Amino acid sequence: MGIDPGFRIAGFGILKKESKQTILLDYGYLSMPPSKSLVARIGMFHDFFSEKVIQQRVTDIALETPFLGKNAQNFLKLGYLRGILYLLANKHTLTTHEFSPREVKLGVTGYGGATKEQVGRIILQLFPRMEKPKKDDVTDALAVTVCCLWKNNFQRSL
Amino acid sequence: MGIDPGFRIAGFGILKKESKQTILLDYGYLSMPPSKSLVARIGMFHDFFSEKVIQQRVTDIALETPFLGKNAQNFLKLGYLRGILYLLANKHTLTTHEFSPREVKLGVTGYGGATKEQVGRIILQLFPRMEKPKKDDVTDALAVTVCCLWKNNFQRSL
Repeated sequence: MGIDPGFRIAGFGILKKESKQTILLDYGYLSMPPSKSLVARIGMFHDFFSEKVIQQRVTDIALETPFLGKNAQNFLKLGYLRGILYLLANKHTLTTHEFSPREVKLGVTGYGGATKEQVGRIILQLFPRMEKPKKDDVTDALAVTVCCLWKNNFQRSL
Repeated sequence: MGIDPGFRIAGFGILKKESKQTILLDYGYLSMPPSKSLVARIGMFHDFFSEKVIQQRVTDIALETPFLGKNAQNFLKLGYLRGILYLLANKHTLTTHEFSPREVKLGVTGYGGATKEQVGRIILQLFPRMEKPKKDDVTDALAVTVCCLWKNNFQRSL
């Protein structure tokens, strides 16, 4: 499962490797109302992804390395959500993976300087039966999932 | 309960207001071996404080506002631990409080520019029966707890 965490929208994608095929098990996003308190949203985020982990028998979590932007408080808050995912990794014995944005682009498109659009187009081509995601966060999450799956060349029988 | 979270040492103090008395219920620190993985330490941190919350019937959590220092990655990691505390707040319906370092100093000593040593001395005077904490993290955690308790003038019957 790859996740693009955020306090408004948290995108995710869950892939499975079966022999040489990459199967899209689930994808989508959790939308959290800004009217809810930070504490309530952290609870929602935890429960949502905890359920996904159990339902889909997730074995690995892939995240993109965050970089400090203009807003240090947003960076810290992103840490809250990542902390929750690491807790799930601990409780469900998941392996965690982290990739820089460049590694994700390189992994998906073969070119580290690819644009967001180029990455998105390849994701759509990979899963032709998938509905075009309404949110970029979903495509971003799928990109990190694809990168992780390919890079690790998963051969487990899930 | 006031907490000074950290990946090596996480100090805490638990106070209770009984009529006009401030009672020290518990204090100490969780020490996490650097040899353990980040994910393992997040799990330890969660379990330790989850148990404290239940054992001591904690109603409120007090934290100091963190500021971005020289190391952005440490700041992000501090976010992981804060995220875990917010999750506990959600699961156990705790009220969360946050104070700037200046507010804590002001709350404890009456002077916002007080030194760490001045704060520490007052904490020791407040709880004369307490053993001198081995770690500054404990005194820091107790300072934010005292600040929170006094500022909110807690009148609940716990």
